[in-house]
Amino acid sequence: MPRAPRLVDVSVPLQPGLATYPGNPEFELQPIKRVAAGGSSNVSRLVMGTHTGTHVDAPRHFFDDAAGVDTLALDLLIGRARVIDVPLRGGITEVHLAQAGLREDLRVLLRTPNSALWNSGEAFHQDYTYLTEQGAKYLVEQGVKVVGVDYLSVEQFKKAGAPAHRALLGDNVVIIEGLNLSDAEPGTYEMYCLPLRVTGADGAPARVVLKG
Amino acid sequence: MPRAPRLVDVSVPLQPGLATYPGNPEFELQPIKRVAAGGSSNVSRLVMGTHTGTHVDAPRHFFDDAAGVDTLALDLLIGRARVIDVPLRGGITEVHLAQAGLREDLRVLLRTPNSALWNSGEAFHQDYTYLTEQGAKYLVEQGVKVVGVDYLSVEQFKKAGAPAHRALLGDNVVIIEGLNLSDAEPGTYEMYCLPLRVTGADGAPARVVLKG
Repeated sequence: MPRAPRLVDVSVPLQPGLATYPGNPEFELQPIKRVAAGGSSNVSRLVMGTHTGTHVDAPRHFFDDAAGVDTLALDLLIGRARVIDVPLRGGITEVHLAQAGLREDLRVLLRTPNSALWNSGEAFHQDYTYLTEQGAKYLVEQGVKVVGVDYLSVEQFKKAGAPAHRALLGDNVVIIEGLNLSDAEPGTYEMYCLPLRVTGADGAPARVVLKG
Repeated sequence: MPRAPRLVDVSVPLQPGLATYPGNPEFELQPIKRVAAGGSSNVSRLVMGTHTGTHVDAPRHFFDDAAGVDTLALDLLIGRARVIDVPLRGGITEVHLAQAGLREDLRVLLRTPNSALWNSGEAFHQDYTYLTEQGAKYLVEQGVKVVGVDYLSVEQFKKAGAPAHRALLGDNVVIIEGLNLSDAEPGTYEMYCLPLRVTGADGAPARVVLKG
């Protein structure tokens, strides 16, 4: 008998100390009202960056006149996605992606050794696996419309000119960053990727869940 | 021929000036890096409350030892939901809910004249339609596990003791507040309600989408 589909939360928990890409706001949760202090309820303030934790990059992250995160098509953010294992440290090229055998997938999530970095303490790691410019262009040519990666940037750390971002966002490919794919075995899922609806923003934190 | 399912965004846009419940943090979007100012990309800071805009209340909103928003079951937040029209100003009682004819619905979204308040400017309106204590208890008795409302509180404004919240959250019913159901005709949908995964928080902003 086939097993029932399960829901896999591939979002990282938002809590103080969460690793963030250098220069981005750190996550904060501040008490506003507390029952324990005589308040009528518990209410808190959230402070974070548009690219903190699991988040979506909108084309406006690099291109001022391009789409903000609130205008990204829901029927791209929700739908069939494929998790591909890329057990590689360093730059992912078109060769690695061709080996992985894309099959007309609109949404591709790249599962790399990065996912283990989330469990290695709170520091930001600079030597994460990334997508090369050639790899990014290959995905665009294959018709991929949503690319997910399992650390805080699709790009090599501090790469001048951000060519992978530009290749993807310049073609209106949605980038999801900061996934933890540890619990998502390679295969096909239904993906629900819902960023906050922040008007005109360059990106937004998202909750991302896979069903399969 | 049946029409293709469509996706309805029932989340309110997060932007400066958004109405918030008094005492809650207002929404802010602040520039951190700007391409126009010579930055390598556009990056922003978000400031908001755990109960700002469309959001989920966790039991911890009222009960210190109860579940935080990060532990709410995904299979409650995702699944079949029914939108019920309640064309009423004031308090929704068990009589109104019984008339609406619940049919073993686990997830119920109450569509009231409140939804129009989102289009009436930025001020907070105190005279919104709310759920009475009796109405809340009726929903619990009917086995409802997720209740959504289309303004910033399920409760009458400044109601002492917050009995509707306590009846629902005390029974681990998930409350979704701040929906805009203007574009969601009454009927059955697949709901994707994904709050940010904020560890231990009393609530969190959410993106909520209906498919149907």
